[in-house]
Amino acid sequence: MAIKNAFYAQSGGVTAVINASACGVIQTARKHPEAIGTVYAGRNGIIGALREELIDTNEESEETIAALMHTPGGAFGSCRYKLKNFTENKREYERLIEVFQAHNIGYFFYNGGGDSQDTAFKVSQLADRMGYPITCIGVPKTVDNDLPFTDCCPGFGSVAKYIATSTLEASLDIKSMCESSTKVFILEVMGRHAGWIAASGGLAGQGEGEPPHVILFPEIPFDRDAFLKRVEHCVENYGYCVVVASEGAQYEDGRFLADAGSKDAFGHTQLGGVAPALANMTKQALGYKYHWAVADYLQRAARHIGSATDVEQAYAVGKAAVEMAIAGKQALMPTIVREQSRPYRWHIGEANLSDVANQEKKMPIHFITDDGFGITQDCRDYLEPLIHGESFPPFENGLPKVAKIQGVLAEKKLKTSFDI
Amino acid sequence: MAIKNAFYAQSGGVTAVINASACGVIQTARKHPEAIGTVYAGRNGIIGALREELIDTNEESEETIAALMHTPGGAFGSCRYKLKNFTENKREYERLIEVFQAHNIGYFFYNGGGDSQDTAFKVSQLADRMGYPITCIGVPKTVDNDLPFTDCCPGFGSVAKYIATSTLEASLDIKSMCESSTKVFILEVMGRHAGWIAASGGLAGQGEGEPPHVILFPEIPFDRDAFLKRVEHCVENYGYCVVVASEGAQYEDGRFLADAGSKDAFGHTQLGGVAPALANMTKQALGYKYHWAVADYLQRAARHIGSATDVEQAYAVGKAAVEMAIAGKQALMPTIVREQSRPYRWHIGEANLSDVANQEKKMPIHFITDDGFGITQDCRDYLEPLIHGESFPPFENGLPKVAKIQGVLAEKKLKTSFDI
Repeated sequence: MAIKNAFYAQSGGVTAVINASACGVIQTARKHPEAIGTVYAGRNGIIGALREELIDTNEESEETIAALMHTPGGAFGSCRYKLKNFTENKREYERLIEVFQAHNIGYFFYNGGGDSQDTAFKVSQLADRMGYPITCIGVPKTVDNDLPFTDCCPGFGSVAKYIATSTLEASLDIKSMCESSTKVFILEVMGRHAGWIAASGGLAGQGEGEPPHVILFPEIPFDRDAFLKRVEHCVENYGYCVVVASEGAQYEDGRFLADAGSKDAFGHTQLGGVAPALANMTKQALGYKYHWAVADYLQRAARHIGSATDVEQAYAVGKAAVEMAIAGKQALMPTIVREQSRPYRWHIGEANLSDVANQEKKMPIHFITDDGFGITQDCRDYLEPLIHGESFPPFENGLPKVAKIQGVLAEKKLKTSFDI
Repeated sequence: MAIKNAFYAQSGGVTAVINASACGVIQTARKHPEAIGTVYAGRNGIIGALREELIDTNEESEETIAALMHTPGGAFGSCRYKLKNFTENKREYERLIEVFQAHNIGYFFYNGGGDSQDTAFKVSQLADRMGYPITCIGVPKTVDNDLPFTDCCPGFGSVAKYIATSTLEASLDIKSMCESSTKVFILEVMGRHAGWIAASGGLAGQGEGEPPHVILFPEIPFDRDAFLKRVEHCVENYGYCVVVASEGAQYEDGRFLADAGSKDAFGHTQLGGVAPALANMTKQALGYKYHWAVADYLQRAARHIGSATDVEQAYAVGKAAVEMAIAGKQALMPTIVREQSRPYRWHIGEANLSDVANQEKKMPIHFITDDGFGITQDCRDYLEPLIHGESFPPFENGLPKVAKIQGVLAEKKLKTSFDI
């Protein structure tokens, strides 16, 4: 079998463990010199391929590659860029082939979410439509946990652990302040379309009255009156109320709470503020003193409290992707298959990219309590194993140590440049 | 020497390590039965004394007390309540004496910031003015690090470690996204009057161009044009810009950015949003895509990434307070005295409550760079030792284990109740 080089790229919003998948891809490829030559990482994802900006990972030491295991963000750069359809922009695909040919690339590993799996699928079609042989394997990644066919998605477990931990910690804070001060605390979390991350906040408490007292899911239309009634009930009975709100929380008519709320001094709608919107709503209706937090990037970059399970699975899908490619498989994505929850057992499965592309996995309705404000035992049984185990990074001078990629680019072989 | 009981209370905004100070007080008192009988903890701070709601800490097991070392929040409840002056409300002081007498309390340990030290000082005056002998020792606590006479304040080091770590992690995230997506990330941190917490974000980077690129301190009047120019410079030269903004950031005329900015749909001014205000300002002036986060309680409750130095000092001031009291000292607060920064050496000193009360320690101007947007080497030398060492809590099922206080109240001995 002829030795071919590989192209690896990170795509879409990054996570605390996407670099662990990169580590899995690169270390596994290095173990198979009989099949894979150099692994080139796209500088800023697929854009790097189009621009012929290929990071030569052979220039990175074994120590640096190993350090990817505990480095958040996308070490090679990611992008938000979706390839159009063949018919719409054939030129993009022709360019990719030119670049792949010029650098003898026969393997394409694309590390991302739904859109990215769609891109990987389109690239796989190159093989047929344009007669260029290339093996395409998708590597799953998303904090939103909304990819189909896989039981969970690398990146989610660590966010879930961070949100559950932060909810627990902040709840102890407000609980100690509520007698004479703050009564309501609202934590806004990610998840524009699916409530998986918000649900993970529910792991912080269990019994009647334990925080979080209210979880707002994108899957459940927001009912202002029911929400305010619930908050009032909690403050009157427990002394305080902790709310975990998804950024995707929306009204019946589909308006996001984040957009429905406030305007700035110039009259522009202020985006991305479910928490402040809810805080003001509560203050106006009930008069309670409030605090609110918006975790934003902090939650998906929080490698310092990474889930050991998540880190292990992130590495495993990268490793599996390379092994599938070497085995001659095509247009697949490795998946996480759960065997059982207690004790947690899982193995790697596979799904067709054609099936994965552009689908979203929402929360099953039986994971949400009847009142729409909490998670069920089924949901706990699903979530708990995913935050299991602590994968702390090494620290130096009080701060996490991270991989520093040199990012040496392979010499360009094409005369033409390409404008994105 | 007659055995007397002790009263301990937590006051003001809680921290990730205030319970470590409680642990220091209770464990040390238990070692001195010849002087101290029962340690009663005020339920919700000084309010617990006024209401005669005294938590009998003898009812808590050694394991529970030991677990306070890794439990954030105020385990016995805190409060925002400031005793008035003698002349304004003599009744409050008379009530305190009634309660202290009824429970044979001869020691008063008050764990809090400036206001609380003021309260401790006023209570100490009871001894003279009202002929009731009570030994009063303050135990320093504040995330703001704004107490005078002490080199640093327990509670700050852990927030600093969390903010520095989060800034580092989020910076890696946006760095990997900036080529085709988010260009500006703004993290809002606590510190209404002093910029210590914002400064700690500066530990995340060092060399030219390393994030955070902009720090906004309350001590430096906000200059819109200079800020926008700096942000534009960073995006053009480094591809992105990371801003750490103190909630206390304000204009020359003293208006907080948080208040100056936005109004909600009902026309109410939206409080506590420096980050969104800056994000909108940047978007309107420069058009950059942004993300912003508000850490709020998450930062001061983040015991999961506690600074080992901070935890050690928090315990030490609690222990020292009891030892000072037993030694017959009066109206003092233990302080942290820095001997040297590298390697870090410190010991416990003492300050008079009369001097500490109601003073604020701001950032020395030589800790801030000339452009007003960064920290100097002097500031790094000061901050670095305070975030040194990781004090991770034990975890169970993926979440931190925390102390669960039973909170059994001592039987009330007074017939009268007291309205706050």
